[in-house]
Amino acid sequence: MDSVRLGIIGIGGMGTNHARSVIEGNIPELKLTAVADVSKDRLAYAKDNFPEGIGIFDDGHKLIDSGMCDAVLIATAHYEHPDYVIYALEHGLHVITEKPAGVYTKQVRKMNDVAAKCDKVFAIMLNQRTNCVYRKLHEMIQSGELGQLKRVNWIITDWYRTQSYYDAAGWKATWDGEGGGVLLNQCPHQLDLLQWLCGMPSKVRAFCHEAKWHDIEVEDDVTAYLEYPNGATGVFVTTTGDAPGTNRLELTFEMGKIVCEDGRLIFDRLSENEREFCKTSPNGFAKPECTREEIETDGQNEQHVGVLKAFADRILHGGPLVAEGTEGINGLILSNAMYLSSWLDKTVDIPFDEDLFLEELNKRRAVSKVKTGTGKVFDTTGTY
Amino acid sequence: MDSVRLGIIGIGGMGTNHARSVIEGNIPELKLTAVADVSKDRLAYAKDNFPEGIGIFDDGHKLIDSGMCDAVLIATAHYEHPDYVIYALEHGLHVITEKPAGVYTKQVRKMNDVAAKCDKVFAIMLNQRTNCVYRKLHEMIQSGELGQLKRVNWIITDWYRTQSYYDAAGWKATWDGEGGGVLLNQCPHQLDLLQWLCGMPSKVRAFCHEAKWHDIEVEDDVTAYLEYPNGATGVFVTTTGDAPGTNRLELTFEMGKIVCEDGRLIFDRLSENEREFCKTSPNGFAKPECTREEIETDGQNEQHVGVLKAFADRILHGGPLVAEGTEGINGLILSNAMYLSSWLDKTVDIPFDEDLFLEELNKRRAVSKVKTGTGKVFDTTGTY
Repeated sequence: MDSVRLGIIGIGGMGTNHARSVIEGNIPELKLTAVADVSKDRLAYAKDNFPEGIGIFDDGHKLIDSGMCDAVLIATAHYEHPDYVIYALEHGLHVITEKPAGVYTKQVRKMNDVAAKCDKVFAIMLNQRTNCVYRKLHEMIQSGELGQLKRVNWIITDWYRTQSYYDAAGWKATWDGEGGGVLLNQCPHQLDLLQWLCGMPSKVRAFCHEAKWHDIEVEDDVTAYLEYPNGATGVFVTTTGDAPGTNRLELTFEMGKIVCEDGRLIFDRLSENEREFCKTSPNGFAKPECTREEIETDGQNEQHVGVLKAFADRILHGGPLVAEGTEGINGLILSNAMYLSSWLDKTVDIPFDEDLFLEELNKRRAVSKVKTGTGKVFDTTGTY
Repeated sequence: MDSVRLGIIGIGGMGTNHARSVIEGNIPELKLTAVADVSKDRLAYAKDNFPEGIGIFDDGHKLIDSGMCDAVLIATAHYEHPDYVIYALEHGLHVITEKPAGVYTKQVRKMNDVAAKCDKVFAIMLNQRTNCVYRKLHEMIQSGELGQLKRVNWIITDWYRTQSYYDAAGWKATWDGEGGGVLLNQCPHQLDLLQWLCGMPSKVRAFCHEAKWHDIEVEDDVTAYLEYPNGATGVFVTTTGDAPGTNRLELTFEMGKIVCEDGRLIFDRLSENEREFCKTSPNGFAKPECTREEIETDGQNEQHVGVLKAFADRILHGGPLVAEGTEGINGLILSNAMYLSSWLDKTVDIPFDEDLFLEELNKRRAVSKVKTGTGKVFDTTGTY
């Protein structure tokens, strides 16, 4: 096998982008052989726009059963990700799923259990992990040179969306159709990076505001406070209502501070460990010696194409994935915990009560109103 | 009267700085005529270092009663500020007090009541209000051109202090001696500016960590979440444990975003109101047009000298103060509410239960251990 026959299940905004990218040959080892969607409009679009010979299915399961694909990319509504992943893995296909891994951790645990017992490749589209800036940060933290984490502050408010974004699809931004708002749809990248860089917090206190800036059911404004097992604290602020927003990640370690903003990594490097200096300096107002430097990276940032290349490479040659599919649960634990904290109006420990979360989610699904959408499919290029 | 005879009560670090500044003639309309302190060492220092003829008292009340002063500056321990202010006002002197206005709002309300019934000048040393950057911001917000506030995020973690700072005086960073930590000692400036710029929040949820970075009784690390009456939210993060720290104030309004950092004001100005754009744009991913500009200020930043000049000017010529003494309560309401929220482990409404706060504070005072200090007096020039 010198290339992987790929099927894409769900050809809305993201799925269509991936299809185009594969068709254009951006990932030489992937060949698009089939697509599936439940929307007649989207199937008609595929018929008109995709090369002849590509299988077109009105149901993802049929695509999986067709024998036309070695692997599938799942880009359906969030709730359906785990079921399709499980079905595909159990039917002998390799799978890559769009983020988030699912809507609630219980369904994702089931998916991960299946994946663990299966010899097929399972990946997740955490494309921000290909960003040189985050990769470099991850490498620096892992090396130990920065010492212990003391504080993290991520203002990630540059996910601006207008009302027409939410009006485009009836399921969007509803509890029953999508399962969440900015935390579940826009932030899986940052929540994944947060845990990839800083590890998992032990406590979360979040304040999720629903329908604050838009006429929707779910949250579009969140402030969360985090506590880590080593005592470090964190703040995570996000919204789809700020223009212009901010994407500024500040990390304070014993050996200095790193600010990641505008694609740059600025490191204030201390000459000695702050914890040691604090205890030994005879001067009450003294500060450890500090030099500012911009950290160089390799400049590579392949995003989705990089994730898909690695996926094909793993299938064909056993190379490393950008993100193992089973790691998708970590970011979801963070968003689930933030919702639960806000719903219960109290601090939530991690691990949290996953049955209680599902119960609370289902309360909201029971009264959720999926509307008729305008049917617009926006070009999402450059928006993630 | 062409100059004001000033007495300074409390000549530790700050009081001594003010004394030197007046002696050096930085405030031409103030003349230092007396100082008072309870410490014999500090009185000996005054005798050795201050010009002859200056009255030296071992008790502030004696200084007030001496007839040597038209006005007093109170730079004692925080708990004593309101009592000295009241005594001075009731004995016919003008008063300026160091920040904070007091330790708990109940004592400050009493002070403000006395001041309200009195024709003497009452000012407070909120010297950061003289900073051109904050003055310009205040002016822009007041003008209405920015529209409604949506979000504020202040990372003010550049209050680094070593253990020796806390060890210098036995009362420092104890509940009974000082009454609080970074919120009460270092942050009154930012808490005042926060309310001066954004108004008072209606809810506060804070996480105060005591003795996190230092061997002290009180908090040296705080994260607070705020909600404003109009729905705007805020985050306030402070510590004396981060090196290098950050001082970055980000304010998001309907008409754009302003970031105040490194003495600069960067304004991302929208061409139209975001709230209107959100509702009317047909493109889900569109953003309002935005231009970045650096806001010019008058460059003036007189700090303590400016506050003292205005104080003398008010007394002699009726000019405006930098901050009315009675306004000191607002920042204190914020810090009191943050403590109370953290102590009760829940969200606190503003106005909060001031009796409950005092009860909780007194519990901590009852078991507070004031230690023997090293007696070091650090030069605080440039540290506030």
